[in-house]
Amino acid sequence: MSAHIDHLNIAAPDAAALAAKFTRALGLPVIRETVVREQGVKVLLLAAGEAKIEITEPLGPDTPVGRFLAKRGPGLHHLAVAVPDVAAALARLKSEGARLIDETPRTGAEGHRIAFVHPETFGGVLVELVESGAAH
Amino acid sequence: MSAHIDHLNIAAPDAAALAAKFTRALGLPVIRETVVREQGVKVLLLAAGEAKIEITEPLGPDTPVGRFLAKRGPGLHHLAVAVPDVAAALARLKSEGARLIDETPRTGAEGHRIAFVHPETFGGVLVELVESGAAH
Repeated sequence: MSAHIDHLNIAAPDAAALAAKFTRALGLPVIRETVVREQGVKVLLLAAGEAKIEITEPLGPDTPVGRFLAKRGPGLHHLAVAVPDVAAALARLKSEGARLIDETPRTGAEGHRIAFVHPETFGGVLVELVESGAAH
Repeated sequence: MSAHIDHLNIAAPDAAALAAKFTRALGLPVIRETVVREQGVKVLLLAAGEAKIEITEPLGPDTPVGRFLAKRGPGLHHLAVAVPDVAAALARLKSEGARLIDETPRTGAEGHRIAFVHPETFGGVLVELVESGAAH
């Protein structure tokens, strides 16, 4: 399957409250709620067609998302693109001298291969690569 | 068709350069380039599955996108959600006292009905509603 948007991530101080607004006003239903203690986040996933909206709420101020909220405020956080082969995409980016966050794929919270690319590489957008075909 | 992500918008000083990065590294092809003089933007549209990535480049500094770039820098700008009935979605939002930008649907650059909702309503995210089923 060719590359496509996997999800759009939003950082929020209260994920449930924001999700409820998307559900009531636009009909986007919550399909999963997960707490990932090692990353200090609660994650709500909303179905939005082929792509999903992911809302992350920090479990405390001293977490990556907590610090993001303190610095930037709530709002759009990152764009996740599903690609057939994360390692191959990273190799192409490296060959062009692109700035990465993860030099090699790692296993994401949901068990599939992911890698983050530095915002400098894609015009100020933090991009997560997700191996497509992964179970969701 | 139920609500889904229509596109994700990115503001960039050089849309073609950013689009080329998405194409080369991730295989997302440019499917349309449009200049909308009355809004002072060049718009590049990339296919990304059911959803699209829209990159807007200001035609000059004294345009809405030009001012956004000067103030916030390049990066994620807004999320567009396709809904079956924009007017009905606006009515639901109004009944809850939500802050809007467009009180009634208007015709977007591509001829379909759209409305922007103030970022305050959706957790700091500027949301564009797009009537689904519209020609794209």
